[in-house]
Amino acid sequence: MRASMLSDWLAQRIERTGGQPIYRQLYGLLQQAILSRELPAGTKVPSSRLLASELGLGRNTVTQVYEQLALEGYVWSATGQGTFVSDSAPDEIVGAESAARNAAPAEPRVLSARGARLLQGAGVSQRQGGAFMPGVPDASRFPAAVWNRLQSKYWRRLRPDLLTYAPGGGLPKLRQVLADYLRTSRSVHCTPEQIIVTTGIHQSIDLAVRLLSDSGDVIWTEDPCYWGVRSVLQVSGLSLKAIPVDAEGINPSADDLADPPKLMLVTPSHQYPLGMVMSLARRRMLLEFARQNGCWIIEDDYDSEFRYGSRPLASLQGLDTAGQVIYVGSFGKTLFPGLRIGYIVVPEGLSASFATASAELYREGQLLQQAVLSEFIAEGHFTSHIRRMRGIYGQRRQILLDTIRKRYGDALEIVGGDAGLHLVLRLPDGVDDREVAKTALGVNIVVRPLSGYFLRPGRDMSGLLIGYGCVPEEEIGPAFEKLAAVLDPALGIRG
Amino acid sequence: MRASMLSDWLAQRIERTGGQPIYRQLYGLLQQAILSRELPAGTKVPSSRLLASELGLGRNTVTQVYEQLALEGYVWSATGQGTFVSDSAPDEIVGAESAARNAAPAEPRVLSARGARLLQGAGVSQRQGGAFMPGVPDASRFPAAVWNRLQSKYWRRLRPDLLTYAPGGGLPKLRQVLADYLRTSRSVHCTPEQIIVTTGIHQSIDLAVRLLSDSGDVIWTEDPCYWGVRSVLQVSGLSLKAIPVDAEGINPSADDLADPPKLMLVTPSHQYPLGMVMSLARRRMLLEFARQNGCWIIEDDYDSEFRYGSRPLASLQGLDTAGQVIYVGSFGKTLFPGLRIGYIVVPEGLSASFATASAELYREGQLLQQAVLSEFIAEGHFTSHIRRMRGIYGQRRQILLDTIRKRYGDALEIVGGDAGLHLVLRLPDGVDDREVAKTALGVNIVVRPLSGYFLRPGRDMSGLLIGYGCVPEEEIGPAFEKLAAVLDPALGIRG
Repeated sequence: MRASMLSDWLAQRIERTGGQPIYRQLYGLLQQAILSRELPAGTKVPSSRLLASELGLGRNTVTQVYEQLALEGYVWSATGQGTFVSDSAPDEIVGAESAARNAAPAEPRVLSARGARLLQGAGVSQRQGGAFMPGVPDASRFPAAVWNRLQSKYWRRLRPDLLTYAPGGGLPKLRQVLADYLRTSRSVHCTPEQIIVTTGIHQSIDLAVRLLSDSGDVIWTEDPCYWGVRSVLQVSGLSLKAIPVDAEGINPSADDLADPPKLMLVTPSHQYPLGMVMSLARRRMLLEFARQNGCWIIEDDYDSEFRYGSRPLASLQGLDTAGQVIYVGSFGKTLFPGLRIGYIVVPEGLSASFATASAELYREGQLLQQAVLSEFIAEGHFTSHIRRMRGIYGQRRQILLDTIRKRYGDALEIVGGDAGLHLVLRLPDGVDDREVAKTALGVNIVVRPLSGYFLRPGRDMSGLLIGYGCVPEEEIGPAFEKLAAVLDPALGIRG
Repeated sequence: MRASMLSDWLAQRIERTGGQPIYRQLYGLLQQAILSRELPAGTKVPSSRLLASELGLGRNTVTQVYEQLALEGYVWSATGQGTFVSDSAPDEIVGAESAARNAAPAEPRVLSARGARLLQGAGVSQRQGGAFMPGVPDASRFPAAVWNRLQSKYWRRLRPDLLTYAPGGGLPKLRQVLADYLRTSRSVHCTPEQIIVTTGIHQSIDLAVRLLSDSGDVIWTEDPCYWGVRSVLQVSGLSLKAIPVDAEGINPSADDLADPPKLMLVTPSHQYPLGMVMSLARRRMLLEFARQNGCWIIEDDYDSEFRYGSRPLASLQGLDTAGQVIYVGSFGKTLFPGLRIGYIVVPEGLSASFATASAELYREGQLLQQAVLSEFIAEGHFTSHIRRMRGIYGQRRQILLDTIRKRYGDALEIVGGDAGLHLVLRLPDGVDDREVAKTALGVNIVVRPLSGYFLRPGRDMSGLLIGYGCVPEEEIGPAFEKLAAVLDPALGIRG
């Protein structure tokens, strides 16, 4: 196309009514003409005055478009001489020839090895509630009015300092009330400075393993364990060694003990998903072993606030005198998952490093929410909410236990029902729990197969994780009937 | 201590008034007596009835303490025989001897290599505002009343589905309005499904590099570049290759091009921190090079909404026809940093993988805030806020430019002042910009040394990043005077 034809070409294409703004249309059309070489490099384009008059547009519009195109390199101007189409052909890829000669053909565009493994092992579900989703609390009982009152108070008197990036570690006030809470209710010994506020257990563990281990280091995990943590560890390049659990918790063999890992990740208060409590003897052995061999223990205390029939247990961190335990917890189960506030308690000498690294890696914010949470705790709403929910969950748990017993008597063992938001219904060996879970999903019932939590092949047990936290009392019976209808054929029971 | 003395021992230690609850005191004292072996293993403790009567406590209190201690393994009960102190000595560390014999002595408890490197290179500042913090917007101008109104609406009618974990990708409504916004204002071509909501640019980049690269892979970064991104890449095991920038953006040499990387990370709309725009020819060259060699381009579009004197530039993503560009952006600068909502736009075939991996790795939530943001955008508050802030920042920029010119004339070059929230004041070679920044901090002025953004030693330039976004108009002049008083001696100017 010759420059003289440009006005006509544009006039035919500009939509005067109903289209995009004229500015955008003109810009887009000129860009298209240049990229397609309809306007070849070196072409002198009409002056903005001329083009504006030919198209019946304001001159400012055309000037702005030309300036924009110049800024992006589509055209260039020479003072007094006019505006010319740039040579928009790609810069020559110097050296590309030799690269093509030497290198293997371009790799196909697929995920990395660690990416592919992550997706292959992904345990996350599209469903985030309903019967019998494990690990999900009942957010409908959250005291929303209280929260809204506290939150609105902060938003009404805008505090810009609460809207900016969080300095490493989180809001000092929240760290203060958290230190009190953890000392009183979890026997965690720490100063506020040792607490780093995070977005939850995933981020806490990510931070700890990145600061305390290198790619290729070995970490002991309990077998079985939580799928989400597994993924976080694996993408950080750690080599996972699955250590079986027995009735007293993680149970390393003599061979295991002869080969100390860099880190271990345990759930002493409530093994996930089987629910046992780590014995005192086992706790002291782990601490001593870690001290002797310089390994780190990450204590994941994800839901021990909900314990039925006994008070929450003291933490492993509280027994640690050598500064080897990293304690992680979260408000996801006690308040609501979407809040995304958790915490990590680190040994004294590490607090500055963790605070800085957290800010550096995640560039966190959410200080206003942290302020709201601090007041929510300080005014006593947190503990009273936990107390209330413990009652509700306890009742749901009892209804579920009764329902299971009524249906199956003692034929199926129930494991880990003393605490938390789920229990495990053991199935006889040989029953394919993944198949049962899949069929159950077909009738809109979510259960998770126990075998999926095991890392060592051949060591897995068959069973179903049944969550009762987010299931209203009246729905538990009917939902379990649906599950039983799926389960019976798998158990060889005829209807 | 004999069991018969226990009551006295306890009675002397329990504080009846003003102390912790009696339950906790009794529990703590018994735990202490057992751990210290004052009550040796095997000791039969008094019955709960007896101890309660001797201490003048309710029997329930003592029973609960015993149950708790039993649960944690401190004591055990034999039916009809009483309660005994457990053997709480640590489990023998079987195999520890051989480990100690074979292994090197326990490593000192220090950070991992990647952790140490992260901290050594950490660029994060404790200060998050004030003159002249670069990259921080003015949150005091945020329309808090509007936000509070929208937010309270959601909190008043509690929607439990917005309080739980986010399914991969984020709230569909937000992805929808974002796709519209990005298409219109940034020429990003995508469906809502291609958008993954994240907590910001750090998480977006973390997700992309973990899914698309493996430890040891090479990534090209611009030299200079943003410190935070550098840290995120390094802890993921990537090998960073710093490619110099020229006036047209990243400028790989023939040698560089002969050795294609797995990924590259560029800021085409507004090079950080120098501020130039990548030329069209350079853009097309990069896209073609990436297509030929199967590399991924991460386009970091962190603040191109704030461009003075010209419209925001079209994205590189919009020119990509081969699906090689990963586009990342955030609301941190346009709304407020603490919000922690960002987004990543991925090629069509990758959206499901990214959504799943995001949920798996980060277990995100914040759906209620995402709903509020969706309405904030849909009701037009977002674009009008940007427009208003562009005016305010433009004015502050002008005041700063005038102030600098008035003081230094043309003696110091100003770079990258056309867009964003900061400009770069170049200093003569040989002036130690880190020293200037350090001295400035002493008079409470934050500036960042330009040399700190360079990766290749010996290629760095001296200069100061001066942020004007969060500095009220009337403070710019006085603050710059303070800075100038520090700068003059470094420049050899006498007062």
